[in-house]
Amino acid sequence: MTASQDTIVAIATGQGGAIAVLRLSGPRSMEIGDALFHSKSGVRLADQKGYTLHYGTIQDQDRLIDDVLIAVFHAPHSYTGEEMLEISCHASTYIQQEILRLCQLQGARAALPGEFTMRAFLNGKMDLSQAEAVADIIAANSQASHQLATRQIRGGYSEEFAQLRAQLLHLVSLLELELDFSEEDVEFADRSEIDKLMNAIAAKISKLKESFKLGNILKNGVPVAIVGSPNVGKSTLLNALVNEEKALVSDIAGTTRDVIEDTVNIDGVLFRFIDTAGIRETDDPLENLGIERTYQRLDQAAIVLLVVDARDSIEDMMPQLDTVDVRADQKIAVILNKADRIDAKELTEKLQLLRQKTAYTVIGLSAKLRLHLDELLDFLKQSVDLQALQGDEIIVFNARHHQILEAAESALVHARQSLADQLPGDLLAQDIREVLYHLNRITGTETITPDDVLKNIFSSFCIGK
Amino acid sequence: MTASQDTIVAIATGQGGAIAVLRLSGPRSMEIGDALFHSKSGVRLADQKGYTLHYGTIQDQDRLIDDVLIAVFHAPHSYTGEEMLEISCHASTYIQQEILRLCQLQGARAALPGEFTMRAFLNGKMDLSQAEAVADIIAANSQASHQLATRQIRGGYSEEFAQLRAQLLHLVSLLELELDFSEEDVEFADRSEIDKLMNAIAAKISKLKESFKLGNILKNGVPVAIVGSPNVGKSTLLNALVNEEKALVSDIAGTTRDVIEDTVNIDGVLFRFIDTAGIRETDDPLENLGIERTYQRLDQAAIVLLVVDARDSIEDMMPQLDTVDVRADQKIAVILNKADRIDAKELTEKLQLLRQKTAYTVIGLSAKLRLHLDELLDFLKQSVDLQALQGDEIIVFNARHHQILEAAESALVHARQSLADQLPGDLLAQDIREVLYHLNRITGTETITPDDVLKNIFSSFCIGK
Repeated sequence: MTASQDTIVAIATGQGGAIAVLRLSGPRSMEIGDALFHSKSGVRLADQKGYTLHYGTIQDQDRLIDDVLIAVFHAPHSYTGEEMLEISCHASTYIQQEILRLCQLQGARAALPGEFTMRAFLNGKMDLSQAEAVADIIAANSQASHQLATRQIRGGYSEEFAQLRAQLLHLVSLLELELDFSEEDVEFADRSEIDKLMNAIAAKISKLKESFKLGNILKNGVPVAIVGSPNVGKSTLLNALVNEEKALVSDIAGTTRDVIEDTVNIDGVLFRFIDTAGIRETDDPLENLGIERTYQRLDQAAIVLLVVDARDSIEDMMPQLDTVDVRADQKIAVILNKADRIDAKELTEKLQLLRQKTAYTVIGLSAKLRLHLDELLDFLKQSVDLQALQGDEIIVFNARHHQILEAAESALVHARQSLADQLPGDLLAQDIREVLYHLNRITGTETITPDDVLKNIFSSFCIGK
Repeated sequence: MTASQDTIVAIATGQGGAIAVLRLSGPRSMEIGDALFHSKSGVRLADQKGYTLHYGTIQDQDRLIDDVLIAVFHAPHSYTGEEMLEISCHASTYIQQEILRLCQLQGARAALPGEFTMRAFLNGKMDLSQAEAVADIIAANSQASHQLATRQIRGGYSEEFAQLRAQLLHLVSLLELELDFSEEDVEFADRSEIDKLMNAIAAKISKLKESFKLGNILKNGVPVAIVGSPNVGKSTLLNALVNEEKALVSDIAGTTRDVIEDTVNIDGVLFRFIDTAGIRETDDPLENLGIERTYQRLDQAAIVLLVVDARDSIEDMMPQLDTVDVRADQKIAVILNKADRIDAKELTEKLQLLRQKTAYTVIGLSAKLRLHLDELLDFLKQSVDLQALQGDEIIVFNARHHQILEAAESALVHARQSLADQLPGDLLAQDIREVLYHLNRITGTETITPDDVLKNIFSSFCIGK
């Protein structure tokens, strides 16, 4: 793909508001702007310095469309790396549509979603993983997801992959050097060195792949399953949690009537609470279907809240806890709900007993009266290991990257097998090139990324970016 | 009211989109910007020229919030006339809220709706009627309403009122001069001249008041009532009209179940179609209530479409037309709907007969098959006199202005009465000052506009403007 020949235009701001911004990018931006823009001093945009603003009007022949401010950017010092204008106008739908229409009349084409950022990538202003992070920055709705995207756009990501690539390329070049001397049967690349390096790379890829679990969770919300027998107050607990933090509450329609989801932003981390159907022995096939779904959701959860009724005896509680199979990597808390219905002494005794009998965190609270909810919030916050976010660790949170890492990992397994089988250097080099190919797909480096892949990546963007 | 001491901040763009713009205005804008903005070259915004853009980051201590572009404007060369910054960032809700929060931490106050424009007015950047037009420009959803608001913001309005004011002030000063020479009993102001001038001013005010009918219609949509007996196809006609011009269709929920409204933009003019209950003699009290509402809507309509069934005989049609009382200033068309159900010869004969028997435009069409709808569209377009829009005529379209003009008119009636009663010059001058007072309220000139009036005007704005 070469430099863009056509000039694109789009409204870059959202609906409503007081002002709107339209973006033009491409070789004819200045020409199109000058055809529509009029100023008292007769300014020609094409003659203006980059990073300057110009006040005037947009006119359709003699008809005034609006007073505007136009920002001028000259290639390569613009977002896309191309000649660019940004037109600020009043946020009337009519005005925006008229300016858009006039730009198109002058030969600009309506931009596709993400096309400005795609051009920035094609013009070398950022690599592919950074370009992808632009969409994530815009979509970020919590401090954690914002931090992930910001780090990716800063390029920490790209450096990590550059290192991996450099190591692999070094191996490949040594192996390919051997081919030039194939008649002499030399080995430039010490096989045990290759083995060591491959091990290190495998460990790195595996670690990156592993980080996706956290990355994905931070991006889409930490899944917290609320489970328990019917009528222990699971829905009341969900409502209490959701109302507790009204700051950033959104509704996600449950996929089924019996599983209700709601996300809450707690101290900058998004949690996705999943209220499940009560678990109990039943012959009702419909209810069993609901319970089956509960188990599925339970499996996806990073945190499980096992809710019981504080009034139950310990003997009654224990089997309820046992009906739920939890994994070692899930954080579990047992919630004694309706704690206001028993006296303080009884509650303290039950909490102590349960702490002895199980390895779980045990919390007594009243969802209805919102008593001791802060203890639960503390547990939730502590359950998410944000250490990785503080340091410089790379966290993969893009599903496409995760998929590519899996492909790279299996290519690496193949290469290590070839090494173990003592295959000739050229075959081994080919295997390693396969690993390289996959890693390059993440940052779009060297390998020419096919058009359809690019289109697929950028089509999830909003228009104007 | 004096120059603003505090610095205000608001998000000026709508929700969604790729980029967002935050505005800061007031004496501390640069200081607040410099506290948050970091650029590689260590740019200080306060030192930068107006109308320049600066690329860098907004940071909360060490934490990166976003890459931004900041536009610098120095007083008085800015929208508000004050020191101003416009910060372009990624349109993530999180980022926008963070930057807003940081600006507030640095001492900026969240702007009230319309506060930026109110400051522009207070700093003499525009008069009150121009400031009001800013909100109308943003809300404009058709070419006609856009044109009205644009003309008002251009100040044609202000000039018109300036002329009226100058004439009145001239009168007042002459009358007040007489007071200084009261012992000599002279008349500087010829009473017959005053009478002539007052007549001219009354004619002007009455014309402006009259223009509100068109102005209001263009702003809110030309009301078109669709009336007729039950089952002649009124709703089908409404649907056909609405579907005919899908470009700008919006739904206005009917205030009652039996009156359905829908707006359609036809060649730049907004029409508001009102589908009414069928009119017929009935004892059903509920149906009579609907018919009563139909008559009310009919009264408000600028255009009335009288729908009949083309298959009816002329003898049956005539009484249907007579059940509807129309006013002389309403444009009427008789629609022979279901014209596809009779043969062409019969249709032509009926159309001719009706044109002889009534003074109305008569159109034969089929709403269901969308036959001859263009004839109806032509009639609608011709019924709205847009002549006034083409010329330089002032059109009042703001309800507040209309109200003030009514007050000015009644003050003028009072003044003319005083003149007829040969009241002394000082009393007459006071009456004329009353007229002046009202006219000044429109443009906010001279008379100090009370705080609460200003707040009321600007509170209908969106925040960020």
